[in-house]
Order: sequence, then C-alpha cells, then structure tokens
Amino acid sequence: MSDPSRARQLRKQQTHQSLVDAALRLLETQSFSSLSLREVTRAVGIVPTAFYRHFQDMDELGQTLVAESFGTLRQMLRTARRDPRLATDVVDLSADILVTHVRAHPREFMFIARERFSPVASLRQAISWELRLFVNELALDLSRFPGLHRWSTEDLQMIAELMVDVMVAAVEALLVLPADRPELETELMSKVRKQFVIIGLGSAQWRATRDDALPTSA
Amino acid sequence: MSDPSRARQLRKQQTHQSLVDAALRLLETQSFSSLSLREVTRAVGIVPTAFYRHFQDMDELGQTLVAESFGTLRQMLRTARRDPRLATDVVDLSADILVTHVRAHPREFMFIARERFSPVASLRQAISWELRLFVNELALDLSRFPGLHRWSTEDLQMIAELMVDVMVAAVEALLVLPADRPELETELMSKVRKQFVIIGLGSAQWRATRDDALPTSA
Repeated sequence: MSDPSRARQLRKQQTHQSLVDAALRLLETQSFSSLSLREVTRAVGIVPTAFYRHFQDMDELGQTLVAESFGTLRQMLRTARRDPRLATDVVDLSADILVTHVRAHPREFMFIARERFSPVASLRQAISWELRLFVNELALDLSRFPGLHRWSTEDLQMIAELMVDVMVAAVEALLVLPADRPELETELMSKVRKQFVIIGLGSAQWRATRDDALPTSA
Repeated sequence: MSDPSRARQLRKQQTHQSLVDAALRLLETQSFSSLSLREVTRAVGIVPTAFYRHFQDMDELGQTLVAESFGTLRQMLRTARRDPRLATDVVDLSADILVTHVRAHPREFMFIARERFSPVASLRQAISWELRLFVNELALDLSRFPGLHRWSTEDLQMIAELMVDVMVAAVEALLVLPADRPELETELMSKVRKQFVIIGLGSAQWRATRDDALPTSA
C-alpha cells in the first residue's frame, strides 16, 4: 500500500472511531431511537453525507455500538480468567472486576442497559444475541470449576444466567450511584458478593439433591 | 355536587385515563424521551392545550405512567398473598402469577423495563424509587415465612432483590418471546423455577452458616 493511501486508510479509521465515540457520548442523554445521523456527524464535524463512507445507515452504527460495548464485557471475562486469585476467591474477584470495568466504561454499559428494550428492533436483537453469547461464555468458564464439570449444559447456562441477572442489576445500580457517595458503592458490592455466595451455595445444594435422586430415577 | 358538575368530573376522569392509555400504546414503539405532548393529545383527539387540564407537563404524565404500571406489580404481590397454595408451593405459584400478570399487562411491564434508564431523570428516579418500594414489600412478605422471621432487614432485602433480579430478567425475556412459540415460554418458566429454588436453598444454607458462627462471634 502506498503512503498516501495508508494515510487515507488511517484517517478513515479515525473518523469511524470518532463517529462511534460521538454516538456513545450523545447517547448518555438520549435514546438511540431519537438520535439522528445529522447529530452524530455534526458532533464529529463532518458533512452528513460523509457518514455513508463509514456506515450503511444508522442501524449499522447501532450494531457497531453493540459490538464495541460487548467487546468491553468480554474483556472483563478475559481479565477474570487470567487472574491468579480466581481459584481462591472467585466471588470477591468477580465483584472487583465488575466495578472496575463499569467505572472505566460507563457509556458502553449504560448504552447496553438502556437500549436492551429499544423500540429499534435491530438494536434490541443485537443486544439480546450478544447477551446470550456472554451467558454461554460464562457457562463454559463455570464448567471448568471443580465439581461443575459434570453439570449439564442446560443447568450451567441456568446458573450463568442467574449470575448475569445479578451482574446486570449491579451494573444498573452502579451506573446511577452518585459519584460523591463511595460508601453506597461499598454497600452495593457487599450485597452483590452475598448474592453470588448464595447462588454458589444454592447451586451446590440443588445439584446434590439431584445427584442423590439419580439412583432412584435411573 | 350537581349532576352537570358530576358529569363534567366523570368526563375529565375518562379523558385523563385515555391520555394515560394512549401514551402507553405510543410507548410500545418509541421511548418516552422522544414522545411529544402533541402526539399524545392527537391520539386521544383533543387539542394540545387541553393536555394541561390533566397534567402539568410531560414529566407529570411520566410519573402517572410509573404509578399506574407499578400498581400492576403490586396487584401481583396481593394476588400471591391471597392464594391458598402459597404455603405449599411458593415457587410454582410465584412463576404462574408472574407469567399471568406480564401477559395481561405487557405495555405496563414493557414501559418499566424500557424506561428504567430513561434519559429523562424524573422518570428514571420515579421507577427506581418504586422498584425499591416493591423490593421492601417483598422483603416484608418473605419475613412472614417460617424460618425467615429471624433474618435481619438488610438480609431479607438482599434476598428480595435477588428474587426481583430474576423476576425482572424473566419479565424482560417474556416480553420479547414470539407469541407463536409457547414451548419457549414453558422452557423459560422452568428455568425461572429452578433459579427460585436455588435462591431458596442458597439462602437457607447461607443463613445456617451464619447461625453456626454466632456463638464464636458473640
């Protein structure tokens, strides 16, 4: 590739990213269904028609925002997997990683929380699809824990969903906490930790009941 | 009150309710932040200025929609309390009542799910406040169960929130299920029942651990 064409390519990538960033910023105070192409291009300082060099339409921009935001969530799972504390202290670790990521990427998390029930069907479906992938990935992670590898896929997913429900609620609560009340964050996370512990204890207990029942039902 | 004035009062109430219904209907396909006063009055067939006989502004209409929608949720708890099956089969009963109410009032449930993170601050706060009241009411109900009356208020609320997280997720999943796939609803509710059971088992187990620890910490 020649230098001018490489520079052009780089500039295109930068404008693409600027459009994504501007959209996420604008979506802090409005919903996607009311966001116009013109507002996004104005925020970046390009003419409206230049938008189409980057996205086919607003729907495609929406899909990109979903992909970008879930990239952040997946990064969160990867961070957890690499952490050596995982084996000893899974609950505290999960809670810490959750808070750190939500604090670092509030716009992405808020976008997912807010647009999960968007009247824009393509956006809603993209988020629902990504959330399902996220649950599946978490279920796979869970299956690597001792004692959990014998669980059925269906049951692992059910537990992963329960954990994701708690995470979603925690993220949503974190996002609306006033920044000047750190003690509320501590309180919230202590509650989330208890809830994770209860899910863990309940899962073990529930599974034990089923294992006991196996000889009878077999 | 004279008859003409009573008739006027009645007509006013009817128009008030028509505005609320029209708004909930319009909000099936758009978000509250993009809903205009003019659209609502046009749907009811009154002039825009007549809106102010019923609501001070759109914010007040939003508050009314929140109150109305949470009335439905509270009705759900009352139905559960009256049911004689409660003592024997709390999990199945809760799941049944949840599905019945979501199916009977999809607009109200969808409104809450979608607007929980509305960019309209007054609406977001009203929903967050009502959800907290709902959790408190559920915690009070839980405290009447044998074995749970000795729990601290904080812990009862933590469990109630965990149950509400599962309910919220179930409602959200129910609302987007295709109407022509009843087997998906059955699958979903079987999963929700398992999750309630796990929360119940986990709570009992967790509490037992703490009760055991009491003499040492006292």
